[in-house]
Amino acid sequence: MSPSGSGIVVQKYGGSSVSDAAAVKRVAQRIVRTVQAGNKVCVVVSAMGDTTDELLDLAEQVTPTPPGRELDMLLTAGERISMAVLAMAIANLGHEARSFTGSQAGVITDSSHGRARIIDVTPGRISTAMDEGAIAIVAGFQGVSQDTKDITTLGRGGSDTTAVALAAALGADVCEIYTDVDGVFSADPRIVPTARRLDTVTYEEMLEMAASGAKVLMLRCVEYARRYDVPVHVRSSFSDRTGTTVTGSIDDHPDGTKEADMEQAIIAGVAHDRSEAKITVVGVPDVPGKAAAIFNEVARAGVNLDMIVQNVSQAQTGLTDVSFTLPKTDGPTAMNTLQAAQSEIGFARLQFDDQIGKVSLVGAGMRSHPGVSATFFKALADAGVNIDVISTSEIRISVVTHADKVDTAVRAVHTAFDLDADQVEAVVYGGTGR
Amino acid sequence: MSPSGSGIVVQKYGGSSVSDAAAVKRVAQRIVRTVQAGNKVCVVVSAMGDTTDELLDLAEQVTPTPPGRELDMLLTAGERISMAVLAMAIANLGHEARSFTGSQAGVITDSSHGRARIIDVTPGRISTAMDEGAIAIVAGFQGVSQDTKDITTLGRGGSDTTAVALAAALGADVCEIYTDVDGVFSADPRIVPTARRLDTVTYEEMLEMAASGAKVLMLRCVEYARRYDVPVHVRSSFSDRTGTTVTGSIDDHPDGTKEADMEQAIIAGVAHDRSEAKITVVGVPDVPGKAAAIFNEVARAGVNLDMIVQNVSQAQTGLTDVSFTLPKTDGPTAMNTLQAAQSEIGFARLQFDDQIGKVSLVGAGMRSHPGVSATFFKALADAGVNIDVISTSEIRISVVTHADKVDTAVRAVHTAFDLDADQVEAVVYGGTGR
Repeated sequence: MSPSGSGIVVQKYGGSSVSDAAAVKRVAQRIVRTVQAGNKVCVVVSAMGDTTDELLDLAEQVTPTPPGRELDMLLTAGERISMAVLAMAIANLGHEARSFTGSQAGVITDSSHGRARIIDVTPGRISTAMDEGAIAIVAGFQGVSQDTKDITTLGRGGSDTTAVALAAALGADVCEIYTDVDGVFSADPRIVPTARRLDTVTYEEMLEMAASGAKVLMLRCVEYARRYDVPVHVRSSFSDRTGTTVTGSIDDHPDGTKEADMEQAIIAGVAHDRSEAKITVVGVPDVPGKAAAIFNEVARAGVNLDMIVQNVSQAQTGLTDVSFTLPKTDGPTAMNTLQAAQSEIGFARLQFDDQIGKVSLVGAGMRSHPGVSATFFKALADAGVNIDVISTSEIRISVVTHADKVDTAVRAVHTAFDLDADQVEAVVYGGTGR
Repeated sequence: MSPSGSGIVVQKYGGSSVSDAAAVKRVAQRIVRTVQAGNKVCVVVSAMGDTTDELLDLAEQVTPTPPGRELDMLLTAGERISMAVLAMAIANLGHEARSFTGSQAGVITDSSHGRARIIDVTPGRISTAMDEGAIAIVAGFQGVSQDTKDITTLGRGGSDTTAVALAAALGADVCEIYTDVDGVFSADPRIVPTARRLDTVTYEEMLEMAASGAKVLMLRCVEYARRYDVPVHVRSSFSDRTGTTVTGSIDDHPDGTKEADMEQAIIAGVAHDRSEAKITVVGVPDVPGKAAAIFNEVARAGVNLDMIVQNVSQAQTGLTDVSFTLPKTDGPTAMNTLQAAQSEIGFARLQFDDQIGKVSLVGAGMRSHPGVSATFFKALADAGVNIDVISTSEIRISVVTHADKVDTAVRAVHTAFDLDADQVEAVVYGGTGR
């Protein structure tokens, strides 16, 4: 399970961990230490520092609308550079390393350029390299399409997904995700300086936190880890501290006992998200099928809705309001789509609000502790936070409030659930992680 | 045969032709014009401007001795960037372009990283792309090894070779090599300002000129073109002037006549080379096998010899001197190798001279004009140029002289054979071509 064992370890290093030649050398030393501890190691690496942004700048200089196929070809040059340089740095320490593109590593995807999904992983060359005593270095974020054999990229968080997918295909003991923070915290340390580093968090909790705005791991990577039961260790490449292990849910506890439950904190943490906006469709006739018509239009435009709320109909008018939240970036598309369908759907007008924020409380223990929501809403009320929209899952409560109130809300909830550590635990080492 | 026809045209653009986004856009327009003239077009492109040097710098920052496999992986990122950006620039002009790596284009090589030889070209994806109306953009300089499936690079002049090899495999009508000069000149215009641009030159002549130091085309590219009879049009990407066509030798004239011979200038041009050094092995016993022993030692060290001369033995001592020229960069290796074998071979001492230069006169017409060498040596004598070593082929005479005398010798020979144009023809548009 750990780098001190004798198993297969997949390590992923993000762009901030390989920002320049010095950083690459430091990472090489860490990899070699893992090998010297007796492990077979496969490393997934992102593009160095600002490389991706520089390549995007170059593309913009020749066209405002680069074709997806060619943009993927261009961007994958970034990992090609970082993986070759990392392999060289390892060779310089006296160990053999072989770099592989996503295609060479057997990362097979669909053909959706820029946001391809992994269909299959056939890591024959990686296994062979490791069996021959070499360290395998794999380009993150990229694959090859099953149908067209064109190069694809996986989109945001793609390198983490590559790492987890390879770990699953190789039967790795652990997938270590190296980043520029020490793990997963009970809240964003920039808002709550006394946020606590979590030792373990379940896939379910991590999924809810990622979906609620926690940025340390992307949703799809956690989904992949859960599906294939890959333990993920999120830790910093700038320190030797143990990070956070994301692992099987309590329900899946291998010996069938609920022992883990006893140790499980009720609440994992508080997440927040300022990337959404809210659209309110005002004056919708309260007859069956109208809400469906609204959401159909928006879905057809490719917009992902998050939270939805329909007000109680006003008896005297027979009209109601429908609100939903969505990524801010999808706002114009959704507004244009709905405006075009106004006469068909028959609403009065649209309101757009991008000054909102979402605050979410996540914890697997919520299921068996009915008092959680009462504490949550009391904390918000005491702090003077108005609630606009509420949504819940089995292990999460989320509210939408005004963007200005997000920090206050996060701190109030964090304190109310006694999550504050005795001292400041979080250290941010590098720049912005990717 | 020409871009105004309706055939298959392969175009190759070097690094100076795609030095930045503006240059890439200019090249895209030229490509689109070739397509609009009714041709199917396959483009081979080198890395943009200084990219390769920047990648080499990065490698140096992590190790003084990068493994060949990883260096090839790193350097091939350069063409990946340029080809994707060029495809985008073409798309921006409303035409479809698809970029392909060397591997995707079917450039199969041996496994010699950094200096791989092309074994086979299987351009199925390129043909399909062109048949579907797309412009194919191929990364120059790179391939994939037949045995290990690893990425390889072809070494110096590799992109020209990629272009000619693809032209051969596609049955192209012409391979256009775009560079930063207007074609092949009768001498280096920096030494002879009135050097004349050649309309046509035979493969044989071009081979001799390339082997004698003319830098416009690399030897292996011309060898490939001759073997597969691919007409090569060397021209500038900075102007619309017709360049120099390198084509079949006179002996291969398709209708069997010697008509071409009548129009053929006796002399194609004067080449020079300052990249060689001379080693003299002094006091070698003049018995059979001694010269062979010397050259065996040097060959085993991987050094390519160029010219060799053995002095007349001195009767009273029974000793002789053996001199040979070799690339300056191989000097230390050859000296060390010979020094180590001194007692075995039994020579007195070694002399190393890197202040030499080679001047060569090349022309297919030499065969049938016996007066050429007399004119050549008289011109050198009149100009006060001492000759150290002489070597000849059917269509070339080369001499080694002191490095300081090279310019004088080139000018004297150029004038003696009446090669000077009435006016200055050469324009150097860009930086250093690659």
